[in-house]
Amino acid sequence: MLNYPTGKPGKTGEQTLIRNPNLSKSRLGTSFEQALNESNQYYLQHNIAIIHKKPTPVQVVKVDFPSRNKARIVEAYYKIPSTTDYNGIYRGQYIDFEAKSCYAPSFPFSHLFRHQIEHLRNVAKMGGIAFLLIEFINKQEVYLLAIDKLICCYEESLSGGRKSIPYAYFKEHGILIKPAYAPRIPYLEAVDQAFFPK
Amino acid sequence: MLNYPTGKPGKTGEQTLIRNPNLSKSRLGTSFEQALNESNQYYLQHNIAIIHKKPTPVQVVKVDFPSRNKARIVEAYYKIPSTTDYNGIYRGQYIDFEAKSCYAPSFPFSHLFRHQIEHLRNVAKMGGIAFLLIEFINKQEVYLLAIDKLICCYEESLSGGRKSIPYAYFKEHGILIKPAYAPRIPYLEAVDQAFFPK
Repeated sequence: MLNYPTGKPGKTGEQTLIRNPNLSKSRLGTSFEQALNESNQYYLQHNIAIIHKKPTPVQVVKVDFPSRNKARIVEAYYKIPSTTDYNGIYRGQYIDFEAKSCYAPSFPFSHLFRHQIEHLRNVAKMGGIAFLLIEFINKQEVYLLAIDKLICCYEESLSGGRKSIPYAYFKEHGILIKPAYAPRIPYLEAVDQAFFPK
Repeated sequence: MLNYPTGKPGKTGEQTLIRNPNLSKSRLGTSFEQALNESNQYYLQHNIAIIHKKPTPVQVVKVDFPSRNKARIVEAYYKIPSTTDYNGIYRGQYIDFEAKSCYAPSFPFSHLFRHQIEHLRNVAKMGGIAFLLIEFINKQEVYLLAIDKLICCYEESLSGGRKSIPYAYFKEHGILIKPAYAPRIPYLEAVDQAFFPK
């Protein structure tokens, strides 16, 4: 989930703004999300994959009905997502991933919820394709990191190790996704490379 | 999506209430949804499948920040879902379905959006498992109807045929799911029967 509006995993925007005053807040995450959504649209239209972003979960508290057919939500709160943001089907297989933006020199684990990592691990156990897509904004680079490469760092972090994954680790163990015209982020090529080796 | 609050597919509640004054509105759909969510929880905990309901899509218009870490949505509207409500992975395969409640003698196509049917058809084309789960409230019965059995009726309806699927059609072409203690709606048994014939 990108630009989560409350709680720890959502503070990216503010923190990074402070460090990089030249970047507008709207650049943080949303344009990556937009590029991903356009890429998914491309994959859908070309019958390559069916992958959608899940809606942001909202707890609705109060709804007004200004007219019989109209419902206006007047009090609601963002909820913690129970899974990841993106899932669908590719090459006949279940695919599931989380997309995040951050700044080098590292991707902090605080941008992910523990249950999201557990979810991705369970997906992989069941035979699905599970990974992270990480945008390093200041490097203008996007990496795919397969869940098994994530898990080892994550377990280290739980037992007192560093609480983030260095950019160098992505360079070594991730797959760089070069931006393109269409789809804008051709991440399924990286999926092919990581999960369907020739 | 169950009990959609605006537009045509959401009027189920009201229409059925009029026809069946003995049933409380909360019974319509939500308890079916609750039973499905509990079943999915059971399947998850027993490592049988990872299937989640997608959040209801909401268009957020205005957010207040009563404090730095708190975001309160004060204006938002329900959006039309772009896909179906449930998806995930089962037996290593992508699974995708829509769940609806209705009353016999028939299930009206107006409870589904056309793009949801297209979505299910595309999922099946890509090798995924795609179906409907229909609760007939007055019969206290739930049926699984595979997408191919749905499509033929649907295409007839588009070319002037009847705008609903008769209950008898579900009895003949669907699979009856008997309620149980845990999971409450053991629909994956019906999935086995429909999609993994021995």
